[in-house]
Amino acid sequence: MTNNLLKGKRGIIFGALNDMSIAWKVAERAVEEGAIITLTNTPVAVRMGTTEELGKKVNAQIIPADATNVADLENVFIKSQEILGGKIDFVLHSIGMSPNVRKKRTYDDLDYDMLQTTLDVSALSFHKMIQVAKKMDAISDGGSIVALSYVAAQRTFFGYNDMADAKSLLESIARSFGYIYGREKNVRINTISQSPTLTTAGSGVKGMDDLMDFSDRMAPLGNASADECANYCIVMFSDLTKKVTMQNLFHDGGFSSMGMSLRAMNQYSEGLEKFKNKDGKIIYG
Amino acid sequence: MTNNLLKGKRGIIFGALNDMSIAWKVAERAVEEGAIITLTNTPVAVRMGTTEELGKKVNAQIIPADATNVADLENVFIKSQEILGGKIDFVLHSIGMSPNVRKKRTYDDLDYDMLQTTLDVSALSFHKMIQVAKKMDAISDGGSIVALSYVAAQRTFFGYNDMADAKSLLESIARSFGYIYGREKNVRINTISQSPTLTTAGSGVKGMDDLMDFSDRMAPLGNASADECANYCIVMFSDLTKKVTMQNLFHDGGFSSMGMSLRAMNQYSEGLEKFKNKDGKIIYG
Amino acid sequence: MTNNLLKGKRGIIFGALNDMSIAWKVAERAVEEGAIITLTNTPVAVRMGTTEELGKKVNAQIIPADATNVADLENVFIKSQEILGGKIDFVLHSIGMSPNVRKKRTYDDLDYDMLQTTLDVSALSFHKMIQVAKKMDAISDGGSIVALSYVAAQRTFFGYNDMADAKSLLESIARSFGYIYGREKNVRINTISQSPTLTTAGSGVKGMDDLMDFSDRMAPLGNASADECANYCIVMFSDLTKKVTMQNLFHDGGFSSMGMSLRAMNQYSEGLEKFKNKDGKIIYG
Amino acid sequence: MTNNLLKGKRGIIFGALNDMSIAWKVAERAVEEGAIITLTNTPVAVRMGTTEELGKKVNAQIIPADATNVADLENVFIKSQEILGGKIDFVLHSIGMSPNVRKKRTYDDLDYDMLQTTLDVSALSFHKMIQVAKKMDAISDGGSIVALSYVAAQRTFFGYNDMADAKSLLESIARSFGYIYGREKNVRINTISQSPTLTTAGSGVKGMDDLMDFSDRMAPLGNASADECANYCIVMFSDLTKKVTMQNLFHDGGFSSMGMSLRAMNQYSEGLEKFKNKDGKIIYG
Repeated sequence: MTNNLLKGKRGIIFGALNDMSIAWKVAERAVEEGAIITLTNTPVAVRMGTTEELGKKVNAQIIPADATNVADLENVFIKSQEILGGKIDFVLHSIGMSPNVRKKRTYDDLDYDMLQTTLDVSALSFHKMIQVAKKMDAISDGGSIVALSYVAAQRTFFGYNDMADAKSLLESIARSFGYIYGREKNVRINTISQSPTLTTAGSGVKGMDDLMDFSDRMAPLGNASADECANYCIVMFSDLTKKVTMQNLFHDGGFSSMGMSLRAMNQYSEGLEKFKNKDGKIIYG
Repeated sequence: MTNNLLKGKRGIIFGALNDMSIAWKVAERAVEEGAIITLTNTPVAVRMGTTEELGKKVNAQIIPADATNVADLENVFIKSQEILGGKIDFVLHSIGMSPNVRKKRTYDDLDYDMLQTTLDVSALSFHKMIQVAKKMDAISDGGSIVALSYVAAQRTFFGYNDMADAKSLLESIARSFGYIYGREKNVRINTISQSPTLTTAGSGVKGMDDLMDFSDRMAPLGNASADECANYCIVMFSDLTKKVTMQNLFHDGGFSSMGMSLRAMNQYSEGLEKFKNKDGKIIYG
Repeated sequence: MTNNLLKGKRGIIFGALNDMSIAWKVAERAVEEGAIITLTNTPVAVRMGTTEELGKKVNAQIIPADATNVADLENVFIKSQEILGGKIDFVLHSIGMSPNVRKKRTYDDLDYDMLQTTLDVSALSFHKMIQVAKKMDAISDGGSIVALSYVAAQRTFFGYNDMADAKSLLESIARSFGYIYGREKNVRINTISQSPTLTTAGSGVKGMDDLMDFSDRMAPLGNASADECANYCIVMFSDLTKKVTMQNLFHDGGFSSMGMSLRAMNQYSEGLEKFKNKDGKIIYG
Repeated sequence: MTNNLLKGKRGIIFGALNDMSIAWKVAERAVEEGAIITLTNTPVAVRMGTTEELGKKVNAQIIPADATNVADLENVFIKSQEILGGKIDFVLHSIGMSPNVRKKRTYDDLDYDMLQTTLDVSALSFHKMIQVAKKMDAISDGGSIVALSYVAAQRTFFGYNDMADAKSLLESIARSFGYIYGREKNVRINTISQSPTLTTAGSGVKGMDDLMDFSDRMAPLGNASADECANYCIVMFSDLTKKVTMQNLFHDGGFSSMGMSLRAMNQYSEGLEKFKNKDGKIIYG
């Protein structure tokens, strides 16, 4: 089903690895809604993933690029404008990676070179992408830039580690640059804070399964899926949200506004049962 | 232009007084996007305003109702379902009024009967409307409810008076009921925190002109208009935002994420000029 | 142990019912820190509770008052100034009650007269107290007013019901009046958002035991006790926090900044065990 | 005046450059309140500043250290424990610097090596300091760590540039590490978000004078001074705030909760006067 929300628009999608990726779904939906796009990911990801399959499916050229490399980013914007025949109307940043998480370094034993990589890949790449685009005047007046974030930017989740700091930094960059790009070119910049999603990236996080269960029972509408996230991205790229900028938008079935749901508490209490005495009081210690 | 985002949907719009009203624009846009709707407002407002003109324009019946009156609200939902032929898919709450503001009672000299009216009209009506709808099971699974709010719910603006407290209460009700209606019927409830807008309601606020100028210069994209707000409401009513609930969504050109813009500061500094000595230092006192 | 933080200061404590009350602990600590105080509570509470015992212990007169009644509040401030010999330096508001919770009305079946009472007792009493004080110029320059709140003002907790809305309203009043009383008399107004605490009031909340367990395991420092809360109140009354105003201050062992802790998740996962198949995957439905 | 709030406590103060520094004031007040401390700053700052004068005044040894260098930080904690005779009870992080700001690089023309330095000096140093301390078990159970921040972490101020992103990152680190250090050693970690303050660091920020005027007129209690900030730090180091952690605490006279004050608006309107026609309407363009 299409509403032609992106008819005639040109977009660039960063970070579509395989069909579990949110970026993949966004690419599909964007084209469905009438956009023409290019895809980009790291050369390694392009080789390992199935980005090419997506490229064929949505009739999009793939431009390999290291998103932390300014020259590569310049190439993405130059090529994309050539291929798509004009300035870019929307960009999705769906990039995140922590070597500390991968190497199972705990937050109180971070490797600082790795931390720098976490921040560079997951947050500073967003600044670089925008700065490159702005210097080249590659984004059309009223364009829309979205990055994907997670509620760990506001609240601490065990195991999410230095990615939490990276997401805070990412959201700050959205505000800082949203001001400047907005006042000069009416370009809006927002982050979408998505439910935990079982992507290849997400599956690396510790205890992901149980966390997703908790998150799902807390949220009155349950966890938001990658498909639903793609719909929200489309909305943010469309002309119907032209005055929304510098925001972090929760797309999480209500999780972020919950303190405790009955469903999650029932589950939690199950775990407490064995620690209760016959009067139903919890036995500690 | 239409994207058919509300094709086949049934809606109720509370609070369309005249063609300056945001609710008026929402009604127009909703119908444009394929919805069929009913309109409701207080009997007095219906008589004094031009709601009937709107009714003719968008082919909508008007059901007069005092939104603080449970029986009236029941009638709105009964009649609307009869007229529209089924359960309701979306509802807009655009209602606010403070007798204390009207009577120029300052915040440190509030009349408490009037305060009660402010809260009842501007916030509790939202609870009543939702409770009535839920008891009648009048809203379809996955339906969407939106109320209009203002950033004064988070930050104090001189002269906004007890309306700030009413907006805080309104946003809290959206969260509290969003949890319950979400978990049971997948109905989502959100507030949209809109730029100051020159409506008949807004024009009662003290120093509105200068405040709108400040707000416009602070926001990188400038103040959001009533038309643009209507677009955002459409998006929140559509099926593309099915997992967004319990949120307060700023629709304000970025104002809420600004501390100080260069444009606003330049304006502010103009005002300081006459208080500066020849070295450019500010002379206080 | 004393640090003489309130030496020579005069205070009024609203809401000390019995020795489980936070207000009771604040009264004790305030006097320990050198303050002289009066106590006030509803006539019923004074009769039923053990406020008199506290009065003797801390050498404080008790002034019965209905905090929703302006005349009663005037009496509290007149008498307190007479008894204590001058303007008031600090006030604690520790008042909250919901007839809807007591009568087990769910949030989608609220009685609106009761809701009005919830808001009047738990939130508007705060405005009335401050308005009365300001009109009488009863609070000294640089004085400090604190009300106790709960994180349900920001996030929904099942069973907390209309008290969540009351707390949102309370916190909004702190901001709105903090602006006005601050600019005119340097009086600061804040709310302290305290961990769930086993008081007579708190014990009415549904599933309180399990919620306190969850909250305790989420917070890295565990739940804050009533005694610890009293210390934080003292700090906010002291001259060391003269520029803190219009804030909601979380005193909760870190709960408010947590998304999920390992301890709470372990507990939660215990509850999941029985729903897992032999591969450790959760079986839904 | 002293309240003996830090009697017998050992502390380390990072970042006291000269007598305009907040850290300087904190050092003085900490000692006044009964603490013994060490001071640390970069070797360059130690040479250029007047840290030695402070050292003599408060009887504190100075340990030069580059706060981005792990080995230097280890030395600070080893030496401080030797000098002070035991584990450390409190630490102040008052460090921030942006080469991009110094070199007048705008936010859309950042030098990325400089950005890395901004983040490393202003934010990652905080993580390094804590990680070093935790690995050495150098902080006593129930200890307190505070870093100074600014509201630009939440809202964009023109000219504050990449320091805004650094402050967001700093506040995130406080949360992330607050969880881990709290659950294991009851160490609390908070940031204090201070009014703009005329320090040597602050004076580099563009249009600082006018911004401070705006901030002062917005805040009902006016800007908080460095002396007042020192008092708030003392409170956060004391045993009276043992359950406050992972928080960002605004110490700003109420600024952060203001949308617009009458005083600031009057000033702003002065600047508008010349753009108004004889009917008082603003003439744009």
